Amino acid sequence: MSFKIIKKSKKSSARAGEIRTKHGIIKTPCFMPIATAGSVKSLDSVEIKKIGAQIILGNTYHLYLRPGDELIKKLDGLHKFMNWNGPILTDSGGYQVFSLAKIRKISEKGAEFKSHIDGSLHMLTPEKSIEIQQNLGSDIIMVLDECAPYPATKEYINKSLELTSRWAERCKIYFDKKNKTLGKNKSLLFGIVQGGTYKDLREESARQLIEIGFDGYAIGGVSVGEPSEKMFKAVDWTVPFLPEEKPRYLMGVGKPEEIVGAVARGIDMFDCVIPTRNARHGTLYKFKSKSEKLKVHNTNKNFYELLHITNEKFKNDKKPIDKNCGCFTCQNYSRAYLRHLFGAKELLALRLASIHNIYFYLELMKRIRSSV
Amino acid sequence: MSFKIIKKSKKSSARAGEIRTKHGIIKTPCFMPIATAGSVKSLDSVEIKKIGAQIILGNTYHLYLRPGDELIKKLDGLHKFMNWNGPILTDSGGYQVFSLAKIRKISEKGAEFKSHIDGSLHMLTPEKSIEIQQNLGSDIIMVLDECAPYPATKEYINKSLELTSRWAERCKIYFDKKNKTLGKNKSLLFGIVQGGTYKDLREESARQLIEIGFDGYAIGGVSVGEPSEKMFKAVDWTVPFLPEEKPRYLMGVGKPEEIVGAVARGIDMFDCVIPTRNARHGTLYKFKSKSEKLKVHNTNKNFYELLHITNEKFKNDKKPIDKNCGCFTCQNYSRAYLRHLFGAKELLALRLASIHNIYFYLELMKRIRSSV
Repeated sequence: MSFKIIKKSKKSSARAGEIRTKHGIIKTPCFMPIATAGSVKSLDSVEIKKIGAQIILGNTYHLYLRPGDELIKKLDGLHKFMNWNGPILTDSGGYQVFSLAKIRKISEKGAEFKSHIDGSLHMLTPEKSIEIQQNLGSDIIMVLDECAPYPATKEYINKSLELTSRWAERCKIYFDKKNKTLGKNKSLLFGIVQGGTYKDLREESARQLIEIGFDGYAIGGVSVGEPSEKMFKAVDWTVPFLPEEKPRYLMGVGKPEEIVGAVARGIDMFDCVIPTRNARHGTLYKFKSKSEKLKVHNTNKNFYELLHITNEKFKNDKKPIDKNCGCFTCQNYSRAYLRHLFGAKELLALRLASIHNIYFYLELMKRIRSSV
Repeated sequence: MSFKIIKKSKKSSARAGEIRTKHGIIKTPCFMPIATAGSVKSLDSVEIKKIGAQIILGNTYHLYLRPGDELIKKLDGLHKFMNWNGPILTDSGGYQVFSLAKIRKISEKGAEFKSHIDGSLHMLTPEKSIEIQQNLGSDIIMVLDECAPYPATKEYINKSLELTSRWAERCKIYFDKKNKTLGKNKSLLFGIVQGGTYKDLREESARQLIEIGFDGYAIGGVSVGEPSEKMFKAVDWTVPFLPEEKPRYLMGVGKPEEIVGAVARGIDMFDCVIPTRNARHGTLYKFKSKSEKLKVHNTNKNFYELLHITNEKFKNDKKPIDKNCGCFTCQNYSRAYLRHLFGAKELLALRLASIHNIYFYLELMKRIRSSV
């Protein structure tokens, strides 16, 4: 078994567990920093490890287009390429095809798209997505799904999830062929539940995917501009139909209070661009208390605050972002220095802020795990 | 005495020594990475230390305009502000006033200029320059000089060096007032020899400055677009007139072979934007041999090569930039990965390349020191 539940909450659906991958064990609930193009923006892989990341997420779309999965395979895979020896989850590339690239045509076969880099034409099929991810050497591989726009009609979402299920099955077949030959180096394959904001469609999607059978189940289509309540509804409508003994991954979520709320609803894995994007804009996280256990059944956001470090009031503030924080940035630099670096547009600002915000998210997950 | 000569070369004018500052000893010949606005571009102060920098250079012009020397003073000085506890040399601000800002008027009093940031009007006098540098808490303070354009008429250069000498004297008087009260926390004050490409004017400038008396002597006006031979001539024409027992600093120089050549001519200190600027453009340094001693009387550049890392040929090159290099970048990442980061415009590219190039320059200085 690749997933083991260690502890279950009595007050909520939260659980703490462990996912076993070829590159080590991941304690859940976990957060995955995003290494889009082979680097977590502005950070090196050695410091990502020091910050405490257990697993990172690589973007198949970006790595396929540049430098290319075939090249990375020749260079002994993504782990070696970026010098990261922990687990890596890769997405299917679908989300970026639907958001970054120009779609030419979606068909039963797959999605034809134009590269956002050079306009070249490509075809992403379920099989191709798996092939790319296997070339990258990913530990956790995601099936290709159609990312429906939000909002969308029920009819559209229904057709879309049917297509997603057929693609998921093709992914599974293609994945198994190679994966069976890998012995100890097997990867895991996750399905993605779609169904938008429709309760019955979420159930239907989950049912179809479970029939195919995956190592874990993601909930997709919730981060495309949906407000928190709708996101929580999608989770509430999906989790009951997912098998207890498989990890559950809520894609693209979210704010700290959303993560807490989703853990309480039974989610094990998260990824989100928010902490690093906020960092690059000088918005920094700070816990209100030193080491309070988080009530995972409580989704209010009173447990943290946001510092807009470019604010005038930090001009001569000698304190670190958070005096209780153990991150490299807080151990070495003041708010006044960070404010100055942002003001002077020094690159170092982006890195120091990213280190802190990722550390905050990973600390959040630690507190959540010890609260379950 | 703040300077001690440890060893002299028999084959050239090269010497190895030690400069004593309030923040520790600097082994010479030394290279100073440039921390323009309180950070060596893209690097943090902890890694600058790890890379092996003994001393860094801060730019008075930038720090005066943003965040302001008064603010940095309130925050306990530049060392504390950027968390660097080694020596810092600050320039006078003059060079940037003459190159970055819009000059309104140069007079006996000083230089009136418009900030390149917000267009505000400022007056940089010799006294003001020293005051700013003392507010920053600099270990080695430079006098304000007029940076004459290159090329310039002899008449212009002559007038300019006379003004520079009068400014230097005012700097010395202003500097001494406060410095005398500082006990163990005294700074050093360096004069700057001007005189352009005119032998007699270099001598005259040196003579005038020595009469005033400084802790060290810089050679200025050689990096403003001058070719190597002219730069070497300016050095050859100046060094013989400088006191043996004081450190000599060649401002803004240079390429590795220029540094080697200048050391052979008796120079002890260097700063230059070349290694970090080259890094940001993907141009990386590599020694041709593992640990060959450098012949400091030999200025050919056969001892190193430049790698243009964005070149196609590094696409699947698993080797580090230099397998014999001990820097963080070479210890952890391949040429192929660096090439990819540059291609994908990842910020990490700039940092990893800067780490390597500064390490190369500091290693160059180590080899030079052991060759003297």
